[in-house]
Amino acid sequence: MERAYTLGLDYGTNSVRAVVVDCTDGRTVGTHVFDYPSGERGVIVDARDPHLARQNPGDYVDGLRAATLGALDEAVGEEGFARDRVVGIGVDTTGSTPLPLDANCRPLALGPRWSGNPAAHAWLWKDHTAAKEAATITEVAGRHAPEYLAPIGGTYSSEWFWSKVWRCLNVAPDVFAAAVTWVELADFIPAVLASVTDPRNIFRCVCAAGHKAMYSRAWGGLPSKDFLARLDPRLAELRGRLYDEAHPPHLPAGTLSPVWAEELRLPVGIPIAMGGFDAHYGAVGAGVAPGTLVKIIGTSTCDITVAPTSEPLGDVPGICGIVDGSVMTGYYGIEAGQSAVGDLLHWWVDSICEGDDSLHGRLSDEAARLRPGESGLLALDWNNGNRTVLVDPRLTGLILGQTLRTGRAEVYRALIESTAFGARMIVERLANCGVPIDRIVCCGGIAAKNDLFMQIYADVLGRPMLLAGSPQTPALGAAISAAVAAGDGACGYASFEEAQERMTFLRDERFDPDPMAGAVYDELFAMYRELHDAFGAVSTARADFPSLMKRLLVLRERVAGDGVS
Amino acid sequence: MERAYTLGLDYGTNSVRAVVVDCTDGRTVGTHVFDYPSGERGVIVDARDPHLARQNPGDYVDGLRAATLGALDEAVGEEGFARDRVVGIGVDTTGSTPLPLDANCRPLALGPRWSGNPAAHAWLWKDHTAAKEAATITEVAGRHAPEYLAPIGGTYSSEWFWSKVWRCLNVAPDVFAAAVTWVELADFIPAVLASVTDPRNIFRCVCAAGHKAMYSRAWGGLPSKDFLARLDPRLAELRGRLYDEAHPPHLPAGTLSPVWAEELRLPVGIPIAMGGFDAHYGAVGAGVAPGTLVKIIGTSTCDITVAPTSEPLGDVPGICGIVDGSVMTGYYGIEAGQSAVGDLLHWWVDSICEGDDSLHGRLSDEAARLRPGESGLLALDWNNGNRTVLVDPRLTGLILGQTLRTGRAEVYRALIESTAFGARMIVERLANCGVPIDRIVCCGGIAAKNDLFMQIYADVLGRPMLLAGSPQTPALGAAISAAVAAGDGACGYASFEEAQERMTFLRDERFDPDPMAGAVYDELFAMYRELHDAFGAVSTARADFPSLMKRLLVLRERVAGDGVS
Repeated sequence: MERAYTLGLDYGTNSVRAVVVDCTDGRTVGTHVFDYPSGERGVIVDARDPHLARQNPGDYVDGLRAATLGALDEAVGEEGFARDRVVGIGVDTTGSTPLPLDANCRPLALGPRWSGNPAAHAWLWKDHTAAKEAATITEVAGRHAPEYLAPIGGTYSSEWFWSKVWRCLNVAPDVFAAAVTWVELADFIPAVLASVTDPRNIFRCVCAAGHKAMYSRAWGGLPSKDFLARLDPRLAELRGRLYDEAHPPHLPAGTLSPVWAEELRLPVGIPIAMGGFDAHYGAVGAGVAPGTLVKIIGTSTCDITVAPTSEPLGDVPGICGIVDGSVMTGYYGIEAGQSAVGDLLHWWVDSICEGDDSLHGRLSDEAARLRPGESGLLALDWNNGNRTVLVDPRLTGLILGQTLRTGRAEVYRALIESTAFGARMIVERLANCGVPIDRIVCCGGIAAKNDLFMQIYADVLGRPMLLAGSPQTPALGAAISAAVAAGDGACGYASFEEAQERMTFLRDERFDPDPMAGAVYDELFAMYRELHDAFGAVSTARADFPSLMKRLLVLRERVAGDGVS
Repeated sequence: MERAYTLGLDYGTNSVRAVVVDCTDGRTVGTHVFDYPSGERGVIVDARDPHLARQNPGDYVDGLRAATLGALDEAVGEEGFARDRVVGIGVDTTGSTPLPLDANCRPLALGPRWSGNPAAHAWLWKDHTAAKEAATITEVAGRHAPEYLAPIGGTYSSEWFWSKVWRCLNVAPDVFAAAVTWVELADFIPAVLASVTDPRNIFRCVCAAGHKAMYSRAWGGLPSKDFLARLDPRLAELRGRLYDEAHPPHLPAGTLSPVWAEELRLPVGIPIAMGGFDAHYGAVGAGVAPGTLVKIIGTSTCDITVAPTSEPLGDVPGICGIVDGSVMTGYYGIEAGQSAVGDLLHWWVDSICEGDDSLHGRLSDEAARLRPGESGLLALDWNNGNRTVLVDPRLTGLILGQTLRTGRAEVYRALIESTAFGARMIVERLANCGVPIDRIVCCGGIAAKNDLFMQIYADVLGRPMLLAGSPQTPALGAAISAAVAAGDGACGYASFEEAQERMTFLRDERFDPDPMAGAVYDELFAMYRELHDAFGAVSTARADFPSLMKRLLVLRERVAGDGVS
């Protein structure tokens, strides 16, 4: 292969990052971050409504230019790099982050009439103003189109496409009326780079469509007009101005337009890959494959794996989303998640201990001196509800086993363990539904920083915990998608698998399970399941609560006496 | 009644307090505290064994002199007081706190041979070295003499008489062999004041005997020789050197000897009342009566009430002790308790929040702004096990309902509420067994200092919470016992009831239940019982855990919206 490079653009919540990646080995040769200037760290908020979170589309376009030029400038210093060796551009973004466009594919917010109206801006993934709309969609779908809910875990979220668009219709009907179409940020950026000016020519990725807009070929694309009319006739009418088909990620979404080629000083006509969500392209950059689960561990956790579409796959109850081609062409993208992981530890440190960030390190050090079972504690990781496998936001936390000698570090460890047990519930659910996992690759800040956390996960899950080699797996995944879009030949790859083979890598550091610790955690996990199934309304059949506290005490006394550590 | 005074001596864990009390109205006219000089704040400890807690009997005698003289000196300034108007002396102490005596009633520890041996000193109530002995006593009694366990709640404690004496035999057989008899501190001090020199002449109170030494007239006094021989033949042999009969509290234990009369400059021959435990005489000083429960609220809680022996009283399962005459003559003394109350709040503040004492005030202020049910939390108060009604030290704490927004004050309030629910379990158990409670009088530091705590108790228990007028109810109770020992006539009373009528009083401040808050707490208490009965191994019949977290959320949403406060 001739030396070739791709550009990956990663649109996060507060900034956009561009990376220039060497297609032969996935090495980053240039990177640059642009912080969104609008609002609070890039997020437009409303003091009267804490649920509102919008973004200025102008920031996206300014960031596209600044981040790309910055990354290319850095790459220019690298031996072998030249701008004309850039063979493609890939994009990943947060989502669902839809924005309204006019008839020329221009964001409404960029015109003078709507620039002051938050409803005309991009509705950021974490905007929660549409709770009522989401509940109604779930209810109506449950009654009239339950098939729409099956692949998304049974509940339509206020964070997703239709909730937000409908909310706009309800609170800003003038904005809704002015919007010729709506587009996910993941589809908007490729359209910008290709200078698409007709909404009908915007390529939509199956990732956003399938996971957030109830799109499936099984029912002919987006939800039916009849269904949408039950919500509001104007939504049914919008359907015709959206899209009939969404596309898998190996296809190009377009090619770099002359205008943007000049702006970025890149070759005109190079392919723009189909946009995707950050977690999905992050999984690609971390080496997701059948049997490999990628865990993106942050405030919450996103778990992604894939299963070949060539083999039948039944329902996996409680899994957030299963979408054909949403991660890589030829595979079902399977997405699960935990509602609070880093957030659970932050809750303990911030809200209860009232400590600063350094306390995480001190509590981890102290907790690392405890053996599994020695805290005597057992917790449920539900302070923010349970996304997978219970799909129930109305669950809450539980800690039991406290004595008068229980300290902060014991609880801290029990909270880490509870999230590991929650992670094991997901892995076991996947395995029981024909998606066995034998390899786990982690990315995210906690994975890189907290050895205790990773060792507990290895011990609880009974599998090595591997670490993605790139600190920026979403941007790397986007760059990989660009190498695939560039196509087989002198400068690209025929498939995601081939590209991953060369462009992804792991860190040398890994965490192997300790069988002795694992045996103790098997016992604790069985107790966790008693609480999980009873308080999570699955079944009380496993529960033996009258003996639970004593079993924990006996376990603690046993492990304190022998050599498990 | 001619103006008369009695002296009350209150032997606590770190000091002895003497009060001089006016028999006409219970008013304290002189008080003095003597801190025990030995060990750490009066407690002899052993760095190698955290369970060891002993006291130097010399401190008791020095304190008897210093505290009494100090209190009398202060009283001398009061109009109407004169030393020759002191008509009796009463004593209350911690317990079970037994000490070994020689043939002349002298503590072994005060002789040169044993002064350096902790086993020869007093075994303070909170000495826990005899856990193994206690477990064996419980086991052997369960098999061969279950009647011994019925009135003490089913479990013999390591804190009690026989556990400690047997422990001494096991670890210091020479000390055991040198002891002619063993005496509870509550019986020792009256014997000192009466200058008793023959162990057979020591009067033993039924309070210590019945609650801590398995004494009952029902089986002819102390446990049988056969039973004790099953533990160790030398214990059976000791039985003959202890006592055949224990006495109710209205009888004098002796009269003030010439030696001590001269030492204290008090009239020779005035009666010394029967000694009693601090909690029991504290209840007397707080006005305990049939239908009145006295709660002594400290690190743990001791609950005392009485029921007339003239009426039949069945078993009250789970109650720590029911002993004829242990509080007042003519009544069953009924003792219950909660293993951690103040300690549970201290645990939260010290071990989890790592705050100092001032944090209690800040958290209380913040928690007071929450409505009942608004924290969304529910807790079990079992960090130190459950004394009444489950009698199970091997239970642990539980908190549920946490979200990512739960703060310290919410948990603090939930912990207070959990102890109030525990208190309600006790009151309901008493009522269900024929001991209805319509009046609750509180003493102890928390009762005097924490308004939020008291209001929550009033609301949860649905009864006014009254406060004992004296800040030193045990010493006042001891002084009342002295007035009763002085006898009916010019300077004493015919009965405890008569003396209480004149000598006890309440504070003006009281906490009345709020019916709106009470209605919410009725709902929360029902949920507490679900957890209590399931995790406490009573029954899982009430539990509906699959809906519990949601019921708490619904309750929180309801109270946050309306006017319950």
